[in-house]
Amino acid sequence: MNNLAIGLVQHSCTADIDANIQKSIDGIKRAADLGAELVVLQELHRTPYFCQSEEVTNFDLAEEIPGPTTEIFAALAQECRVVVVLSLFERRAAGLYHNTAVVLEKDGSIAGTYRKMHIPDDPGYYEKFYFTPGDLGFQPIDTSLGKLGVLICWDQWFPEAARLMTLAGAEILIYPTAIGFDPNDSREEQQRQMEAWITVQRGHAVANGIPLVAVNRVGFEADPSGRGQGARFWGNSFVAGPQGEMIFHSGEDEGVFCVEVKRDQSEAVRRIWPFLRDRRIDAYQDLIKRFRD
Amino acid sequence: MNNLAIGLVQHSCTADIDANIQKSIDGIKRAADLGAELVVLQELHRTPYFCQSEEVTNFDLAEEIPGPTTEIFAALAQECRVVVVLSLFERRAAGLYHNTAVVLEKDGSIAGTYRKMHIPDDPGYYEKFYFTPGDLGFQPIDTSLGKLGVLICWDQWFPEAARLMTLAGAEILIYPTAIGFDPNDSREEQQRQMEAWITVQRGHAVANGIPLVAVNRVGFEADPSGRGQGARFWGNSFVAGPQGEMIFHSGEDEGVFCVEVKRDQSEAVRRIWPFLRDRRIDAYQDLIKRFRD
Repeated sequence: MNNLAIGLVQHSCTADIDANIQKSIDGIKRAADLGAELVVLQELHRTPYFCQSEEVTNFDLAEEIPGPTTEIFAALAQECRVVVVLSLFERRAAGLYHNTAVVLEKDGSIAGTYRKMHIPDDPGYYEKFYFTPGDLGFQPIDTSLGKLGVLICWDQWFPEAARLMTLAGAEILIYPTAIGFDPNDSREEQQRQMEAWITVQRGHAVANGIPLVAVNRVGFEADPSGRGQGARFWGNSFVAGPQGEMIFHSGEDEGVFCVEVKRDQSEAVRRIWPFLRDRRIDAYQDLIKRFRD
Repeated sequence: MNNLAIGLVQHSCTADIDANIQKSIDGIKRAADLGAELVVLQELHRTPYFCQSEEVTNFDLAEEIPGPTTEIFAALAQECRVVVVLSLFERRAAGLYHNTAVVLEKDGSIAGTYRKMHIPDDPGYYEKFYFTPGDLGFQPIDTSLGKLGVLICWDQWFPEAARLMTLAGAEILIYPTAIGFDPNDSREEQQRQMEAWITVQRGHAVANGIPLVAVNRVGFEADPSGRGQGARFWGNSFVAGPQGEMIFHSGEDEGVFCVEVKRDQSEAVRRIWPFLRDRRIDAYQDLIKRFRD
């Protein structure tokens, strides 16, 4: 019980939804075979990354939670006896959609959901069109494997999100992600962006004395509208320990991985680096301002 | 005016205060010769790192601000026409001391001060005995070179400090530091700690789209009380750009360095990564709690 074995399923997606789901299913089974107790899927693993353009018909891809996809994976979680982190396009009501993570327990029940709080919007990533910002706050999800600090993609750039999860008792930070290179950028800029993405998340692990797992998709996806350049998702899923040390780092190919983190490491690290003791909560009021001008 | 040339002065210290001051003076002159407009000294550069043990006589090392040391360096700032970041042991009143950074303008005037807000305390770093936590908040210091987000050492582990400086318009984060290896730790643990120290700060640069400079002391200093194992300060002063990219990284030897950062880079980076646009200030209230239990 001292170690937690985490499965990471990193794959490409196409317009063939059934094929995408099958890849996730195969990945979960494979991760379970490797010994994983917790399996994390990438962001929006059921579909292509449809936010490359703004098309109202894409809302047809959304589904209710619980719904057909949670049913499929609930049966699988139960079969494999693993906790699974799904990432779905949630239809909450007509005209009200979220980017939502669902955590399934080993018995197939829904342990909890998290609705992406920080929504990006930049060329090729038109998420503000599709996703209403989350209204469930930063609440870890209680499971048989501990409290999971599930966040999603763009959240990973915000230290506030990681801190609030930590303060609420999260034992690990988990980020399903879909992030890629802009084909128009130089190779140097692409590398700088990918390294920044890894660094800021490792920084959250350090600042909070907590392990962290990020699972990103791979593969090139053209913009179906033909307007954008498409995106090459950079993979590089990784696991960091509570000192931000890299425990595992994948490449840009599809893969299923099982990585162990030591559960008692956080407490040991926080004893030598007691940041939670020394936070100046008397002087942090302005963090809830947009800007201090 | 588009680039900012920053001087970093990294040196060892002994019980010989005059010799320490001379090293800082020589360093500032050398940095100015190299073209630096801003020179950053390491934490408590005037003295040995006296916090290795708790001795009331060490309070004799404190001085008023303005005081003899600010006078020496004010004359030098004026002579060299540079902005200087000092780090001093401030005597504010009998029994009231701070760990304080002073920013000197090119004309020798005091542009502003910052009193270390987060105070560490762990074996060999008994700072809570010496330093009253700062009461000036997280306010950038306005200078002829822009708004400087001056923080000190332990502050560097707290994303809140970096964020508050950024929200108040800081154009660069500056950390005078004194951090070292515990000789009792394995080489592996020492490396993990140093890498965590670099990573968390690079993470602040990324999260805030702002360059960052950290200047750390070097050299072994024995514990004068004979009780502790002493500390080997790890140097590794560095400068990161607004994507967290390493622009400069020193080693563990004494040195004076001049490094240029591009002033317009922050705005360019924040346009592609508009984190300040997307912060969920409606959901951050609990950041001013000690813990969310």
